[in-house]
Order: sequence, then structure tokens, then C-alpha cells
Amino acid sequence: MTPEPLPNHLFDAAIALQALGANEFSGATHPAWNNMVGPFGGISAATALNAVMQHPARLGEPVSLTVNFAGALAPGPFTATACPVRTNRSTQHWTVELRQPAPGATASDDQPDEVVLTATVMTALRRDTWGASDLPMPPVSRPLDVPLATSRHMEWLNRYELRPVFGSIPAVWEGQAASDDPLKASLSQVWMRDTPARPLDFCSLAALCDVFFPRIFLKRATMTPVGTVSMTVYFHASSAELTAVGTGYLLGQARAQAYARGFFDQTAQLWSEEGVLMATTHQVVYYKA
Amino acid sequence: MTPEPLPNHLFDAAIALQALGANEFSGATHPAWNNMVGPFGGISAATALNAVMQHPARLGEPVSLTVNFAGALAPGPFTATACPVRTNRSTQHWTVELRQPAPGATASDDQPDEVVLTATVMTALRRDTWGASDLPMPPVSRPLDVPLATSRHMEWLNRYELRPVFGSIPAVWEGQAASDDPLKASLSQVWMRDTPARPLDFCSLAALCDVFFPRIFLKRATMTPVGTVSMTVYFHASSAELTAVGTGYLLGQARAQAYARGFFDQTAQLWSEEGVLMATTHQVVYYKA
Repeated sequence: MTPEPLPNHLFDAAIALQALGANEFSGATHPAWNNMVGPFGGISAATALNAVMQHPARLGEPVSLTVNFAGALAPGPFTATACPVRTNRSTQHWTVELRQPAPGATASDDQPDEVVLTATVMTALRRDTWGASDLPMPPVSRPLDVPLATSRHMEWLNRYELRPVFGSIPAVWEGQAASDDPLKASLSQVWMRDTPARPLDFCSLAALCDVFFPRIFLKRATMTPVGTVSMTVYFHASSAELTAVGTGYLLGQARAQAYARGFFDQTAQLWSEEGVLMATTHQVVYYKA
Repeated sequence: MTPEPLPNHLFDAAIALQALGANEFSGATHPAWNNMVGPFGGISAATALNAVMQHPARLGEPVSLTVNFAGALAPGPFTATACPVRTNRSTQHWTVELRQPAPGATASDDQPDEVVLTATVMTALRRDTWGASDLPMPPVSRPLDVPLATSRHMEWLNRYELRPVFGSIPAVWEGQAASDDPLKASLSQVWMRDTPARPLDFCSLAALCDVFFPRIFLKRATMTPVGTVSMTVYFHASSAELTAVGTGYLLGQARAQAYARGFFDQTAQLWSEEGVLMATTHQVVYYKA
């Protein structure tokens, strides 16, 4: 059911890190993941998480991840640091930073590298316990009954197979509202997976949490400059549930709650085809309007 | 309408910080905010935010705050560091830590202080823009038509006036489900404000985001050990909207989405009495079941 990870998959190439020393890694941006400015935020989030996943001192599996996009990554190399700042009996807290040379800096400068991303991660040795979900997967058509999205405006969109069920990106941009019902005005539901197929893991799940197009596009149908500034992911899936998904689809659902004074938020959920709530995620996004 | 801040208010006493040097502050836990183990998480979150608010290099107002509760604070002093790690034209990214001496450490030890809390904060110079909300305030009774909650099991609960509209903490703990409808099984709606009255500001709004009792209590009506491990707040309110609330009530609404392998999440919203969505917030909580 679950093929071996593809050694040359563009996702793995983009998040790859080389250990430089204690808590320090080197990596590089990958043009296959280009967004409007800098890389797709989801791949940067996955890279930050990967620094923790690759760290020899890691305890357990990720439970929460918050990534702050402090500045656009320039094409080229970066340094990642991941520090286990507190290790408890069954939980561990991490701080992560990605840095790049300041624009115009030369090798002989004493100028410190610039922070381009900060993150915090909590990992834990999780135990089997009573569990439940208060948010059943919405009843939607199966993935193969939903046509593929054709929007490929950014290079990174070619890395995903997206099948929008509800709340597609507007076909016309004439300021029309998506819905008169505020509860549906920014709602999207979409089947999603990596392409080419790649077995789901924590890093790719983190990236999938950022594939939703900006809610304000749906709300306003007006071209609006935007950029995510902070994203949080809560991981509910076990390794066994990730393995069970394999290269299958996830149903993502996203909506906004508030748009005010240059920033809107997004709250989203990702279920497996079997209806397991794999991750819940939130982000706050800059907009110019 | 808005009284002056009370100089001796227990909220201000608890979050007070003294500047020690560049990026460094000292503070101390306050017994009026005691929880089961250590202080109420909301007051620790407000203290972390206050380190940024008090910092002379701060640019603008808070947009997002993520606080990770790495370990229980011991009663007594702590050191707070707040570093502006990236300053852009209109946004600024901060990392914050609270530290205390390791248990058993003496003044002559070389042992470094332990990290008890990490946080990241994004602040911004916000501009007036088009805005909207996709989540209208639910129609509920006005605050004074709703009886006061009487549960005072923890000292910090005496610092809040809570008027539960829906989804009160169970009166009996016999494992009964709160609701057969999964969408209501962990839903609470509650009017809330500081007591004695204190004009709302960003720090008190952050603390109010953590006043909801653990969703698993409502879901299971079974005594369950719990502890928040990470909380995120997105601030949508302007200073003018905070001032307009003054000492008035906020309506808080919270629900869980998933409970799995020792951790559940909570997603929540806080509206002003006039229906302005002031903040949206999320947290992930450890449970033993």
C-alpha cells in the first residue's frame, strides 16, 4: 500500500538539511517551490520542522509547530538552528531559526546573518489514550469524483494535486462575494496530496496545512497582495495513521474568522479519506487593501 | 466610561516587569494567580507579551502571540528575555523566554537557569483597511441576564467575573456526555471580564483567551489531569476597540476539535458586547486518560 519514499522527490530535496554541528544545519531554497516572493511558506515550515526531526536529541513526535515568517527567503543557502531548550519526561520544547546573510553582506563582513524565520516546536512521547473528534469530516464527494484544479499561477502549485470540492479560487475577479452567508463566505474544501505521490509524514502534513489560497481572495474576488506571517499546526495523527494514509488524499477545510487593519486569520482542518482528523491549523496573513 | 487603570490591580501586579538590561527583565509569580500547579497560564502568557510591550524597541501593536508552557513556574522570581530578532518596515518579530533557577540550584552554581516558557510575538504598525468578519457573534442573552459562575476551585478564578451562557463546567462528574451532537459536545459560551474591573488592553485580552476550563471536562465529565502546552492568540482589535470595551464584558466561545493520544486542541473566539471579534485563539492541551 505504501511505496518507499522517492529518493529524488522534490519535497525531500527542498527540506533536506546537512548537519553542521550541535543544533546547526545547512539547507538551500529549491526553485521547484517558488512562490510570488521567496518559497511557498509550507515548504519553509516543513524545513523548520525537519531540523527538529533530524536532531539526534529529539524526544517523540511533533504535537505543535508555530512558524513565523519574518522575511522572504532569498534564493540560495540558509542556516537552520534547532535547540532543545527544555526536555521533560515525556515532552520537549524546541526553538528554531532560519538565517541568511543580509542583502549585500560579503564573506569578510562581521555582519550577522538575518533571521528569516522563527519557529517553536513541541514534541512528545505520545501514549494510546481515550480519543474522540468533535468535528466530523463534512460529507463531500470522493476525491476521484472531483475535477483537478487547473490554477498553476505559482511554481509550487505544480507540486500538489488539488481537487476543490467547495470554495474554489474565483474564476472572475470582479469583486463579487463568494456567498451572502458569512459562514460560507470564506469556506473552502479541497482534496489534496503531493504530486508525484509521496507517503505522508509529519513534514509533508505541515506543508499541506499551508496549501489553501488566501481566504481574502474568496471573500473579495479582488487581487490583493498577501503574505502569511505566522502559522500554527497541531498534529493529531499518529505515525500509524500517517502510514495508513500513505499516498492517499487528505480533505482540507479552511475559513477566515476576521479581517481587520491589514491582517486576517485562517482556521483549517485536514482529515484522512477515512475521516480521521489528522491536523488542525491556524494562520494569520498580511493583506494590503 | 473608562476608569483609569487601578495602580494596585492584581493583574498589573502579576505581569509587572523590571528592566535588568538590554532585552532582559525580572518578574515574580503572584499567589493571587495560583492554578493547580504554578500560575494560571493566561497570566504567564500576558507576562510574556508584557515583556514585548515594555521593550523600548517595540514597533506597533501585537498581531500574533504563541506561548509554549515548557515547565511549571515555581513560586518566586523569574527572568524574562524579549529579543526583537527581525524588524521590517511595518512588522517586527520577537522571541521571548522566561527562565528560573533549576530546582536545587544555589547562587554559587554555574548551572544555567531552566527555560519555563518560550514565546514568539509579531507586532505591526497597523493601518486602517477594508475589514470584515465571517463569524458573527452568536445570539445570546446579555451579560447581566446570565448568572455568575460559582466555581472557584482555583485561586485565579477569583480574578475573573464569568457568566456562562452555554456549556458550563459539569455539576456532576459521572462520565455523562455534554451533548450527543458532536458540534456541541465541547462548546462553551461565556461572558467574561476582570474583577475588580480593569480597562481591557492587549495583555489582559491575551489572558482572557485562556480562561476557558479544559474542553475534556465538558466532553467526558470525568476528572482528568490536564495542562496547556501551547497557546496562540491572533489580535484583531485596535487600540480604539480595546478602549471602547473598557471594563465591559467579552463573549468567549470555545470548542475542541480533536482528542488523540494525550493531547486535545481548543479553538476559541472573543467578541465585544457590540459584536466586534477582538481575538481568535487556539491551544493544545495535555491530558491523562
